[in-house]
Amino acid sequence: MTSGPTMKTPTTALSHHTLDAVYYREKNLVDDILKPGAQPDFVREAMAHILGREIGDGELRVMNAILITMMEHGFTPSAISTRSIYMSAPENLQGAVAAGLMAVGSQFVGTVENNARLLARIAAVPEGEKRALAEEIVDDHKARKVHMPGFGHHLHRPDDPRAIRLLEIGAENGLDGAYVKALRLLGEVIDEKARRHITINATGSVAALLGEMNVPVDLMRGFSVLGRTAGLVAHIAEERERPSARFIWELVDKTIPYEA
Amino acid sequence: MTSGPTMKTPTTALSHHTLDAVYYREKNLVDDILKPGAQPDFVREAMAHILGREIGDGELRVMNAILITMMEHGFTPSAISTRSIYMSAPENLQGAVAAGLMAVGSQFVGTVENNARLLARIAAVPEGEKRALAEEIVDDHKARKVHMPGFGHHLHRPDDPRAIRLLEIGAENGLDGAYVKALRLLGEVIDEKARRHITINATGSVAALLGEMNVPVDLMRGFSVLGRTAGLVAHIAEERERPSARFIWELVDKTIPYEA
Amino acid sequence: MTSGPTMKTPTTALSHHTLDAVYYREKNLVDDILKPGAQPDFVREAMAHILGREIGDGELRVMNAILITMMEHGFTPSAISTRSIYMSAPENLQGAVAAGLMAVGSQFVGTVENNARLLARIAAVPEGEKRALAEEIVDDHKARKVHMPGFGHHLHRPDDPRAIRLLEIGAENGLDGAYVKALRLLGEVIDEKARRHITINATGSVAALLGEMNVPVDLMRGFSVLGRTAGLVAHIAEERERPSARFIWELVDKTIPYEA
Amino acid sequence: MTSGPTMKTPTTALSHHTLDAVYYREKNLVDDILKPGAQPDFVREAMAHILGREIGDGELRVMNAILITMMEHGFTPSAISTRSIYMSAPENLQGAVAAGLMAVGSQFVGTVENNARLLARIAAVPEGEKRALAEEIVDDHKARKVHMPGFGHHLHRPDDPRAIRLLEIGAENGLDGAYVKALRLLGEVIDEKARRHITINATGSVAALLGEMNVPVDLMRGFSVLGRTAGLVAHIAEERERPSARFIWELVDKTIPYEA
Repeated sequence: MTSGPTMKTPTTALSHHTLDAVYYREKNLVDDILKPGAQPDFVREAMAHILGREIGDGELRVMNAILITMMEHGFTPSAISTRSIYMSAPENLQGAVAAGLMAVGSQFVGTVENNARLLARIAAVPEGEKRALAEEIVDDHKARKVHMPGFGHHLHRPDDPRAIRLLEIGAENGLDGAYVKALRLLGEVIDEKARRHITINATGSVAALLGEMNVPVDLMRGFSVLGRTAGLVAHIAEERERPSARFIWELVDKTIPYEA
Repeated sequence: MTSGPTMKTPTTALSHHTLDAVYYREKNLVDDILKPGAQPDFVREAMAHILGREIGDGELRVMNAILITMMEHGFTPSAISTRSIYMSAPENLQGAVAAGLMAVGSQFVGTVENNARLLARIAAVPEGEKRALAEEIVDDHKARKVHMPGFGHHLHRPDDPRAIRLLEIGAENGLDGAYVKALRLLGEVIDEKARRHITINATGSVAALLGEMNVPVDLMRGFSVLGRTAGLVAHIAEERERPSARFIWELVDKTIPYEA
Repeated sequence: MTSGPTMKTPTTALSHHTLDAVYYREKNLVDDILKPGAQPDFVREAMAHILGREIGDGELRVMNAILITMMEHGFTPSAISTRSIYMSAPENLQGAVAAGLMAVGSQFVGTVENNARLLARIAAVPEGEKRALAEEIVDDHKARKVHMPGFGHHLHRPDDPRAIRLLEIGAENGLDGAYVKALRLLGEVIDEKARRHITINATGSVAALLGEMNVPVDLMRGFSVLGRTAGLVAHIAEERERPSARFIWELVDKTIPYEA
Repeated sequence: MTSGPTMKTPTTALSHHTLDAVYYREKNLVDDILKPGAQPDFVREAMAHILGREIGDGELRVMNAILITMMEHGFTPSAISTRSIYMSAPENLQGAVAAGLMAVGSQFVGTVENNARLLARIAAVPEGEKRALAEEIVDDHKARKVHMPGFGHHLHRPDDPRAIRLLEIGAENGLDGAYVKALRLLGEVIDEKARRHITINATGSVAALLGEMNVPVDLMRGFSVLGRTAGLVAHIAEERERPSARFIWELVDKTIPYEA
């Protein structure tokens, strides 16, 4: 690297420790978070640690629903990778989880972020301009032949039951502000222009609800990663009892033929 | 691969879906887990999904405390890696988390498993043979000059406050059976032979408590991975606001000299 | 997934095997590639396997120079991550390499691709339009205050010796066509507009030379990954003999202070 | 971390740079390695960088053969993971390679190391004791019902053509010393005790040849990783043109049924 002037030393607010205590941000891990009667909650502490603020009970309930929904999706590319790597290196559970997590990328979870960016734009304009902007967005996607992120599902029609229920849980807990309204408005415009009902899918609901919690768009993927981590550990647990990775190997190898 | 007979097709109990429902094991995600009034809890569902059984309230409270304790440890090799990778490829948050998770290996979290294996051996023998086995184990580690996993801490003396508090939370919630007793017995034997007090550390407590919950030893690392995932997302959140990875690069590059 | 019609079965041209032979594309591994007198060369076979065509001797020499140049860059975020993960899980060498490779992302190696896209645009227009396009590109980057990929170096001034030598090796081996000319033209325009000499850096030269070999832009990163893999294995080899990861941990932890 | 005395500052011999030069160990990258007429060779420089010594022409030829042999094995768990991750996050080629590399673990490539450890033991004893040790090793594996690493192949019978050819290439280049003799001796003993011919497989040959080059056993996996990296980039190149990951997803999801 350079031999020029040294960069300014950064700081961290995440943690520090003394001879007899460990701190998470400004809280003592043992004497505050884990103290008798405290009902310590991992999701609450994770949110507080990531977002740098105290978490409301409503937000906590909604985040629990989101993380559960993100946890499991069957034999996805993510789970297939985790099981394949675990079979190859079972001494290395963390590597198998890491491999599967790398599937939490643009093609699936990235749609949460793309949707959230659209919702943020609509949320930011005055009431009277929202519909026009929503129409412009839908027309623009149509003109560019780009899928509208957060809408449509290859399987669940007319409606994705998870998406509907997540929005209900949001409303039950006070999270039905500008982002959720923007999502519903987009849905109306899409339906009008398509002349049929297109479902809001789970990623659309998640984008709106994370937006309501002021999660920065570029961090949203972090919560998908957290939810999916649990699911991938479950796939490893099952792989130990009911292995399928070796079968998948044989199945794929025999099914895809060679052709020059 | 082989051209021999096809392997038997495996099955999965983790999930399936129909046209209008998604199932996690035998539960309908929307109609059971997320139903109105259900208070869905991510940690409970993650445990149930991984372990394949319903989770007691006491187990849930203890697991929350464990996951929180595993979440954050400051600028560890894990966090340094996550921040370094995030700086290099910020479009790829999941890769940065994955890189840091790979540090959840033998040298740190592996001690949970090594300790748990010792506890399982002591837990398995009749009452009258436990002390002799504990002494044999301690002597054997001493003879091989191998560190006793779960004991000692370079910083926290005489006692690791996290370890003590975790065992208390276990006891408050009914998790103080054969594994915790084995841990305490090992501690007594170690102290006697060392003629001074050696602390039970956090990994020792975690090993005993996961043992109490019948988590298979080879899966224990999965819960460390889950807890740490949240911490690594927090490091990414902070890196976005207060970057340190570029500073770390310059610091390391300038501090470690070339020597042929 | 869907229960609709099954997708068309894909095929692979990469390899197949019979009871007594293994094929890489259309070549028999043992009887063609490794046959007596064949002088098998890994870089040649890797290029042929990746690009799906026979490789000329000039291309082979240039690729060797590129891979060597990509191999090592000292204690970068990539090497720091690999060493940190190796220290944490030495039983898992492949995970340590994988962690470091994830740094081969947008911020460093991505500039090769960004540069190559500009060169492809200039290479594609008629001779008489090239300069105007180059000026347009430079002006556009200046207006957007975006760094011109492939140009400038914080350390090597006035010129990056690697960049100059790589282009010479290209010319010595017949790789100095439209991409290299576009790179030089961009350099001229940049110098004119800046009224001083800005170096072509190594990523600029690599982009031009990979372009000359018709490597698709989205695959260019693959060769950086290959070169860097060797460097990361070297860092692991050194970490085994002269460990630095634990020192880095202590150094970073003590240098970056807590600040709420 | 500790607040005790700072660790001794480590050093690195891998590289350093000045204002106008980059060094790989003691060689100037541009003026030595890439100088006119130098015929720079990536595999030679990679070996020299990793092993810290100059590489003989014979070693270079053998390593080329080894790397080529390690490069490609069709739709393995490694390739399946790389393709699955690439499909999910194509902006992140390095993550897809990293995911696949994590399969280079104990179950496949680890057998190289296990075999090499046995060969090193036999190589280390006097001539007159080698056979007895080989017999003891074979008997011990049989008694423990553990597979003898480096021997047998589910497909290639009676002999793995790659293994035979690799040993020939070793002999052609002077690498047929104590490790190769130990491998052949083990093979004789295995055949005698099994009363039929068991093939030496490719991992056995690779272990012996890397042993002949004095590659430390714990680093051997690094060369498998390097060879496989090229193969995984080729799978990504093919996935871009002939995608199979989405098909694999559907295939696996439809083939593995739910069963509670």
